[in-house]
Amino acid sequence: MSYGKKKMHLNLFLRNTGHHEASWRHPGSDPNGVTDIDYYIKLAKIAEAGKLDSLFLADSYGLPPTMQFLVQQALEPFTLLSALAIATSRIGLIGTASTTYYEPFHVARKFNSLDHISRGRAGFNIVTSTGNATAFNFGAAPLPEHTDRYERAGEFMEVAKGLWDSWEEDAIVADKEQGLYVDPEKLHEINHVGRHFHVKGPLNLPRSPQGHPVLVQAGASDTGREFASRMAEAVFTAQNTLEDGRSFYADVKGRMAKYGRSPAQIKILPGFCPVIGDTSAEAKEKERELNELTQPEYGVYRLSNLLKMDLRGYPLDGPLPFAELAENHEINSQKARHQLYLELAQRENLTIRQLILRTATSRGHYSMSGTPIEIADEMERWIVQGAADGFNLMPPYFPSGLEEFVDKVIPELQNRGLFRTDYEGTTLREHYGLERPERSSSRQSVISAQ
Amino acid sequence: MSYGKKKMHLNLFLRNTGHHEASWRHPGSDPNGVTDIDYYIKLAKIAEAGKLDSLFLADSYGLPPTMQFLVQQALEPFTLLSALAIATSRIGLIGTASTTYYEPFHVARKFNSLDHISRGRAGFNIVTSTGNATAFNFGAAPLPEHTDRYERAGEFMEVAKGLWDSWEEDAIVADKEQGLYVDPEKLHEINHVGRHFHVKGPLNLPRSPQGHPVLVQAGASDTGREFASRMAEAVFTAQNTLEDGRSFYADVKGRMAKYGRSPAQIKILPGFCPVIGDTSAEAKEKERELNELTQPEYGVYRLSNLLKMDLRGYPLDGPLPFAELAENHEINSQKARHQLYLELAQRENLTIRQLILRTATSRGHYSMSGTPIEIADEMERWIVQGAADGFNLMPPYFPSGLEEFVDKVIPELQNRGLFRTDYEGTTLREHYGLERPERSSSRQSVISAQ
Repeated sequence: MSYGKKKMHLNLFLRNTGHHEASWRHPGSDPNGVTDIDYYIKLAKIAEAGKLDSLFLADSYGLPPTMQFLVQQALEPFTLLSALAIATSRIGLIGTASTTYYEPFHVARKFNSLDHISRGRAGFNIVTSTGNATAFNFGAAPLPEHTDRYERAGEFMEVAKGLWDSWEEDAIVADKEQGLYVDPEKLHEINHVGRHFHVKGPLNLPRSPQGHPVLVQAGASDTGREFASRMAEAVFTAQNTLEDGRSFYADVKGRMAKYGRSPAQIKILPGFCPVIGDTSAEAKEKERELNELTQPEYGVYRLSNLLKMDLRGYPLDGPLPFAELAENHEINSQKARHQLYLELAQRENLTIRQLILRTATSRGHYSMSGTPIEIADEMERWIVQGAADGFNLMPPYFPSGLEEFVDKVIPELQNRGLFRTDYEGTTLREHYGLERPERSSSRQSVISAQ
Repeated sequence: MSYGKKKMHLNLFLRNTGHHEASWRHPGSDPNGVTDIDYYIKLAKIAEAGKLDSLFLADSYGLPPTMQFLVQQALEPFTLLSALAIATSRIGLIGTASTTYYEPFHVARKFNSLDHISRGRAGFNIVTSTGNATAFNFGAAPLPEHTDRYERAGEFMEVAKGLWDSWEEDAIVADKEQGLYVDPEKLHEINHVGRHFHVKGPLNLPRSPQGHPVLVQAGASDTGREFASRMAEAVFTAQNTLEDGRSFYADVKGRMAKYGRSPAQIKILPGFCPVIGDTSAEAKEKERELNELTQPEYGVYRLSNLLKMDLRGYPLDGPLPFAELAENHEINSQKARHQLYLELAQRENLTIRQLILRTATSRGHYSMSGTPIEIADEMERWIVQGAADGFNLMPPYFPSGLEEFVDKVIPELQNRGLFRTDYEGTTLREHYGLERPERSSSRQSVISAQ
């Protein structure tokens, strides 16, 4: 055992039958269970038994036209996480909400409420949405441009933070004798007037156990990285090589100083998808079996969508049309993922089919197959070499891909002093080693007297 | 014991420390517990032990400027009810959402998700919001006019119902062998284009256990009653006399035929606030003690707000200024409540102070003090004489006002054959004796092929 090592943080990225696109066809998966709360409670309890920092839920507000190929419906994050708050006691609960398709009052209140209900375990994964499947459920207009979405996100978060700070910590007096419930001097309007929002405040809930939810973000573009370094407390990112991971890590942490923040105030957590076997060969075989369950028709759709180019006319066993793809310079939130795919295909000289299979496991996130020792080795390398503060764990299939990780990899990480053997705190901030934010009182006025 | 009697339905209206405005000052109340989930779990379990049909949560999105006088913050309904879904197993879960300040996609999905999570116990209390404390948290515009709000509510519900019906019941095939997850012919766009909303669909969740949540409504105006008779499956209403209750009951049920609905398809549930004593004198004394804890300054504010006239200049122990009030003909959602207060003051010749006290218990809902027998007698009268299908129970203070009802009044109702002795079904629809709605496929097209 070695003590004093930097410990890693681990989220469980919950996603229906698993992160491999064919996971629902895996013999152990339950594709009918994905709207069954007991299924998620079971997974959450396994993750909590493994002492993971948090559960992590992505989300979107539309269905792609490929429902025949895989599970894509999802229970709504606030309702799901609040249910899981009751079924667990320590693990964090990170939910996703879009700043493009929500009002800040609703989102601020829901996370505040979840933070009260879970006694300080809420996290807010801030997204700006992608794709018109979502946009057209909220109006006739297509998805706004990337920069417009981020501009709105910035204003949204200003409002949300104002609302979270609209009650002073000791605003509730509850003096039964005197009949004074709240000290009205300690409740504040925010009177926000901006380009996108006009919000008076205060919030109709007092400040929550964590002050506000842990702010999580996953932007990969330059704008996204800037937003993260200014605002985020945890960053979920797709990095395919240790080198890319180190470069991203240094870049984001390097941007923080100009906002008066220290590098420790952001935890960088690349996605990580382990296919675990007792031998390397067994792990490889598991991966091969999963890939055999993929459907090329869906793979071509997914790749076309990501690369913004219809690839249906190209031979599956030929190379990507790099020349045509190079003409596509559209800026959008998936730009970095787009580049990551192209770099991967070029670096390893992959055919279209091979690229599809390489990215079927976790949609471009880092995946590896190996023994528990090999997987722990790789995770340690990323931590020690400054590419990660931890990982967003993306098991290829549930529940066994998670059970194997908790049963076999977690003890190995614990033996190396790289992961906690028990929770030391009760809030997500405490698990991450993040401070509870001080209340900011800028731009606030006392609530109007009657 | 008498069998074959019409059984009543009972919701527990959950509200921080209770429904009496001074409940937080009651010696048994815990005004610091109102953001503590264990407090609500305790109340929910008492209600479930009493075999009540449902929990009921009102909601608004703003704080009035009277927080010094009483508890008005509230945990957010979706997060609170989803947490309570895990802590209970049979009782219904009715939450409030405003069609004026929400997007239908979000609301439809959250109730669908809550219905999945609770295995069919969700109810949607449809409101159009009141007051600018809410409006100014969602923009610079004041609350829209009553008729505009109802017009939007109608379109909102059309969208929500379309989304709830966008998956055929057997859309999920989950054929692992063939690799067919969903039959794409059984997933439908709604392509709604209206004055307020433009929503493509489908929902990103399959049809829920109840088909859709039980639709609850509380409109009292003519527009509101029309909306209810067209749409609602339960109506929460404020009725102060048996005669008024009978008239409302007959009116709403009488409007249903033109929408092709039968009277049994709506359950009418007046608010009911019992102050329970082992003797009539003890009950009266309890009521008096509670009223002594009220604060006239708040009472005048509340009354001024409801009657849309500043009453601060009038002597508390004099009559209402009926002449000036009669000039106030503003149409709004509280019109009926307004009339109810004026009628009460005139009928009983009350001073301002007396009216404040008479309405402090449950904000104008029917309240009575009495022994368990007297209370059961009165409830029975309302049921037998066609003024109610049940009640929205509004205990004056928690937890003891609820405990007394469950321990003393429920057994009396059960002995009379007026209330269930155990749950017979598992869904809220089953508790209410409502049919699961058939899926409607009007105006839907097959989801666009890629």
